[in-house]
Amino acid sequence: MAGNTFGKLFKLTTFGESHGKAIGGIIDGCPAGITLDLEAIQNELDRRKPGQSKIVTQRKEPDTVDYYSGIFEGVTTGTPIGFVIHNTNQKSKDYGHIKDVYRPSHADYTYDKKYGIRDYRGGGRSSARETASRVVAGAIAKQFLSSIEINAFTSSVGDIFIDKPYQDLDFSKIESNIIRCPDEATAKKMITKVEEIKKQGDTIGGTITCVIKNVPVGLGEPVFDKLHAELGKAMLSINAVKGFEYGSGFCGAKMKGSEHNDLFNADGTTKTNLSGGIQGGISNGMDIYFRVAFKPVATVIQKQDALNSAGEIVEMQGKGRHDPCVVPRAVPIVEAMAALVLADYLLLDRVTRL
Amino acid sequence: MAGNTFGKLFKLTTFGESHGKAIGGIIDGCPAGITLDLEAIQNELDRRKPGQSKIVTQRKEPDTVDYYSGIFEGVTTGTPIGFVIHNTNQKSKDYGHIKDVYRPSHADYTYDKKYGIRDYRGGGRSSARETASRVVAGAIAKQFLSSIEINAFTSSVGDIFIDKPYQDLDFSKIESNIIRCPDEATAKKMITKVEEIKKQGDTIGGTITCVIKNVPVGLGEPVFDKLHAELGKAMLSINAVKGFEYGSGFCGAKMKGSEHNDLFNADGTTKTNLSGGIQGGISNGMDIYFRVAFKPVATVIQKQDALNSAGEIVEMQGKGRHDPCVVPRAVPIVEAMAALVLADYLLLDRVTRL
Amino acid sequence: MAGNTFGKLFKLTTFGESHGKAIGGIIDGCPAGITLDLEAIQNELDRRKPGQSKIVTQRKEPDTVDYYSGIFEGVTTGTPIGFVIHNTNQKSKDYGHIKDVYRPSHADYTYDKKYGIRDYRGGGRSSARETASRVVAGAIAKQFLSSIEINAFTSSVGDIFIDKPYQDLDFSKIESNIIRCPDEATAKKMITKVEEIKKQGDTIGGTITCVIKNVPVGLGEPVFDKLHAELGKAMLSINAVKGFEYGSGFCGAKMKGSEHNDLFNADGTTKTNLSGGIQGGISNGMDIYFRVAFKPVATVIQKQDALNSAGEIVEMQGKGRHDPCVVPRAVPIVEAMAALVLADYLLLDRVTRL
Amino acid sequence: MAGNTFGKLFKLTTFGESHGKAIGGIIDGCPAGITLDLEAIQNELDRRKPGQSKIVTQRKEPDTVDYYSGIFEGVTTGTPIGFVIHNTNQKSKDYGHIKDVYRPSHADYTYDKKYGIRDYRGGGRSSARETASRVVAGAIAKQFLSSIEINAFTSSVGDIFIDKPYQDLDFSKIESNIIRCPDEATAKKMITKVEEIKKQGDTIGGTITCVIKNVPVGLGEPVFDKLHAELGKAMLSINAVKGFEYGSGFCGAKMKGSEHNDLFNADGTTKTNLSGGIQGGISNGMDIYFRVAFKPVATVIQKQDALNSAGEIVEMQGKGRHDPCVVPRAVPIVEAMAALVLADYLLLDRVTRL
Repeated sequence: MAGNTFGKLFKLTTFGESHGKAIGGIIDGCPAGITLDLEAIQNELDRRKPGQSKIVTQRKEPDTVDYYSGIFEGVTTGTPIGFVIHNTNQKSKDYGHIKDVYRPSHADYTYDKKYGIRDYRGGGRSSARETASRVVAGAIAKQFLSSIEINAFTSSVGDIFIDKPYQDLDFSKIESNIIRCPDEATAKKMITKVEEIKKQGDTIGGTITCVIKNVPVGLGEPVFDKLHAELGKAMLSINAVKGFEYGSGFCGAKMKGSEHNDLFNADGTTKTNLSGGIQGGISNGMDIYFRVAFKPVATVIQKQDALNSAGEIVEMQGKGRHDPCVVPRAVPIVEAMAALVLADYLLLDRVTRL
Repeated sequence: MAGNTFGKLFKLTTFGESHGKAIGGIIDGCPAGITLDLEAIQNELDRRKPGQSKIVTQRKEPDTVDYYSGIFEGVTTGTPIGFVIHNTNQKSKDYGHIKDVYRPSHADYTYDKKYGIRDYRGGGRSSARETASRVVAGAIAKQFLSSIEINAFTSSVGDIFIDKPYQDLDFSKIESNIIRCPDEATAKKMITKVEEIKKQGDTIGGTITCVIKNVPVGLGEPVFDKLHAELGKAMLSINAVKGFEYGSGFCGAKMKGSEHNDLFNADGTTKTNLSGGIQGGISNGMDIYFRVAFKPVATVIQKQDALNSAGEIVEMQGKGRHDPCVVPRAVPIVEAMAALVLADYLLLDRVTRL
Repeated sequence: MAGNTFGKLFKLTTFGESHGKAIGGIIDGCPAGITLDLEAIQNELDRRKPGQSKIVTQRKEPDTVDYYSGIFEGVTTGTPIGFVIHNTNQKSKDYGHIKDVYRPSHADYTYDKKYGIRDYRGGGRSSARETASRVVAGAIAKQFLSSIEINAFTSSVGDIFIDKPYQDLDFSKIESNIIRCPDEATAKKMITKVEEIKKQGDTIGGTITCVIKNVPVGLGEPVFDKLHAELGKAMLSINAVKGFEYGSGFCGAKMKGSEHNDLFNADGTTKTNLSGGIQGGISNGMDIYFRVAFKPVATVIQKQDALNSAGEIVEMQGKGRHDPCVVPRAVPIVEAMAALVLADYLLLDRVTRL
Repeated sequence: MAGNTFGKLFKLTTFGESHGKAIGGIIDGCPAGITLDLEAIQNELDRRKPGQSKIVTQRKEPDTVDYYSGIFEGVTTGTPIGFVIHNTNQKSKDYGHIKDVYRPSHADYTYDKKYGIRDYRGGGRSSARETASRVVAGAIAKQFLSSIEINAFTSSVGDIFIDKPYQDLDFSKIESNIIRCPDEATAKKMITKVEEIKKQGDTIGGTITCVIKNVPVGLGEPVFDKLHAELGKAMLSINAVKGFEYGSGFCGAKMKGSEHNDLFNADGTTKTNLSGGIQGGISNGMDIYFRVAFKPVATVIQKQDALNSAGEIVEMQGKGRHDPCVVPRAVPIVEAMAALVLADYLLLDRVTRL
């Protein structure tokens, strides 16, 4: 019951440390008969991969995925899809200096205390490299979500926010800039901010907003497995995430019922959508939208005090090749996790009625 | 795989509609040998029950819990604990007017579309009455969390916020006022606010902050079942919740790494705690704290447009006895769900090492 | 993760000790929209209940089931079905003599060692009384299995066996005698045998055969959750079961491939059915049939040595009202467990393809 | 919820088709800190591998296992262990003749009907090649079962049975002959039998007995997850298994209670052990023993009628390199599945009491 599986019917189990031989996973429960577009999967991986632009880590990893099973002549067979991404560009010697050192706000200390042993190289299992497997599975899930559209984008970096409602944004612009913000003027400011931060050897947090359109009415399993509860868990399981809100979110907590209620149109749609497309834990057919908060990456290229395993405070200097801001690379991860939840809940909904 | 079970080893499954014969649940996986303080459980239920003060719904339900199994001579036996709370004060006739009507921002529409049938009386399964079963289970969980202390409190109502860090609050004051805010001056303002709102026949949202002290290092199951991811799901599964953040939360997304990192003391504690007691999904021994956003209750005692099952917009007037603000009664629910997560993760952690 | 839940999508969780207030369960995942025949459920309970004939225990328990949720105006709503059977005729004082005594071949010793505490009255949780909850859930499952027919019957008592293949039996005769054997001549011999055994204060084992007709092709989830593996687990979870075989079973282990293979007809049916209706863990549309071995009831009304908790061998005399042969009352339990498996696998199969 | 995962806390998920790129799996929940003997794991694989003797299939596959994660400097880290066995000696052209043909008593027909597509080469997912992954995981499980000893052996081939109780056998002799029968005289007869059968182009069934010693008292999770129920499911999930019995098994169904009961010794052990080491679903510290029935391999090297996908009966001739008797290679598989169950239940038992 260690927690490396996600999903109930469409299930992803992942394995792998950042500096081991490989990472990968098994997707169990992918329906049979889906013709997979493998290039589309690789494209999603490329959106997540290191080295893709000047504002992300300069590590070069091709992140090519190898499929070992579950696909026959390009079509899913209903048997488990085993896949592997070999680790090819690990510079493990970059990490010799942290062998016995717990970096602040990393998982070094907690892993060591919990397990009594850890693969310290590059963060090991706690590295965000693990999310590449999620992107593979999410990209497969997307391929049977048919008309459902999932678009995530960078909605803030530090204190620079998009100041428009998502309805005014053109999602086709998300990939037009390296920060993945569909509002070009804001994107420029964000990129400049990240470049400044990078020069300082520092890092910066941000938020990602995700909008899901064309969701059928009826997805969600009351009472504990409400659709937004599962989306929340999915997002909170991504490295560096500190918060999740959907629909009116934390703003909704300041409102009155008379202004928060979404009045119906005669066709069952609603005039407003403060509910965020989910009522009682079940999708109502309106857009689902939510916002995810990412803290700044903990590895700064500055001198910092750390703790060693002997219980001494030691000075350390961040090395390696790190992201000054995790948000642009996290956009495809947010989409992937959303796709996993929706795929799973689409399947779950099939057994609601006879 | 309908979603009425919570937990992996310490598992709660609930049943019951607000106007059926009874609600209740089964706790499977409660360790054997725990001498239960049944009065303490009833006290938690009383904190949640309707009619407890002038600012909550005036329904009168005793919410007395009956134990059917799993306890022998006051001690848990390791077998499932079946418990029931009989519904005694349902005024089902209050709900005849919504039989064929979908109230705005309720679960009426989505339940009907998903299941094709619903017990419309009092919200049926979607009623927050279901959370009474969670409070029972959470109160049992608390009894074997030994030194772990869980304190939730109302941190905002509408735009009235406590303006102090939680460290400056005296949690023993939480129960000293009916809004469950430990800061007395703020509590008064909040109560006045709710009374005003109630007079308007309106409702208001709010937030609850929860602080968990004395958590051992090592709770949390990477990578999908990170401790905060499960806490987030637990909270988001509570009726009316729109958002969850822990540690620095959404504020953290505006910060720089150099200011966000929690530097170590030599004993493994940290000088600051923006991490919120969890690093890499695993507790680090510092206080865990998080904040939960509740939207305003959807039932307002005002005329509103609704949709009926024939696809017509009809005017309706909220009736029944409803909460103007859900937050004070939700405090014990937040604590209960936190207790369920911690109990489960304490047990899970026992199999981490040989 | 205590083991009181059965099923993946159609899930039954049970609670209850034989001499507690009540036993019961929660069925989660029953599809919405099923009009339930509650009388049919009670009939199944009556087939299992004590006191139904001279060859079973003479305890008198009405075993009336109370539904607390999940059913609205006679129709399932898709929400969890909570149900309770109150314990009404426990003679707990019958069990005072075993308070500190471990009866041979009972669960007294193992429960005590595992949990450190047990409700010793009437076997507590280890009593077969718990299976009444399975019968309720199985009877509900049967109601949406539509054309699938499940017939179990007593195929042997001691060394008295039906010497005909099941195809030569008339299943409508199963309920025509108190041993539930459809072959009347054999039934008579079996009943005489049980009466003799009862007079001796002894007990006797037996087997039940179950035949399932009209199963659609395609039920079963390779590789670990093969249909027969789940049926086997279901049967082995019933009290007193020592063995399970399906199709050719243990006889098949003596055969040659050339004689064991089931050759096809052009319509996909097979000329023989040594496979027992399952190939590769998946139903092939032929009859599924299997045989379940029950040991003799351990409580004999004779003097026997037992062990007490002080580590002394003590003489004890079985008291109470016990079954001389468990098999006739186990017939509806076998059917119920088979129904639970089939219901679950029917739902699981719905997500096999898009 | 496709069925490719086994276990609750010590969980194995497998992937792979016999003629795809690779097979393998992920073990999630292996405790941290176990120094693995990788050679011992390979030895178990070698016991299962094809080509090991004249009486098994003459395919040559090295079955070398590659570890991708979860092990650091030879020690388990508590993170998932990803492992892969590359397929190296597939002769896929051997299977062109079955592309559109359903072989009798194989899984061809049922897979095709269930999934609408299958990798027909070598049986694909339904091939017993998948069990190699189980052997890897089982061999890892064995390494933390400490003093628990698991010994399986061939107890019958066709109608040749060992006629001694297991207590009279010397388990150290199991590996001394190619049929894996510890009784040398019987082993010789069995080997001769298999050789004859092989010459005929036929196959033969058999049984495997498994004896588990030094099991602590208390393993097993009532009521559905009784220890023997899980062992039964584990065994029934192995290819070609038709039956499972433990303790007195089907013989017990012929006995009287007065002769079947296992009387206690003062130390809690029992004078006899017809219970098979399990009472009420929980181990009692006595030897656990059970017997598993394997049908004859369905592929015979003789002409047989088969069905093609056009609905025509066609004559086919088994080709390829097949086992005349599956039992000797299944011995390590039975042990592996037993080890997985015990490892899982050992961990589960850790949360029984506080």
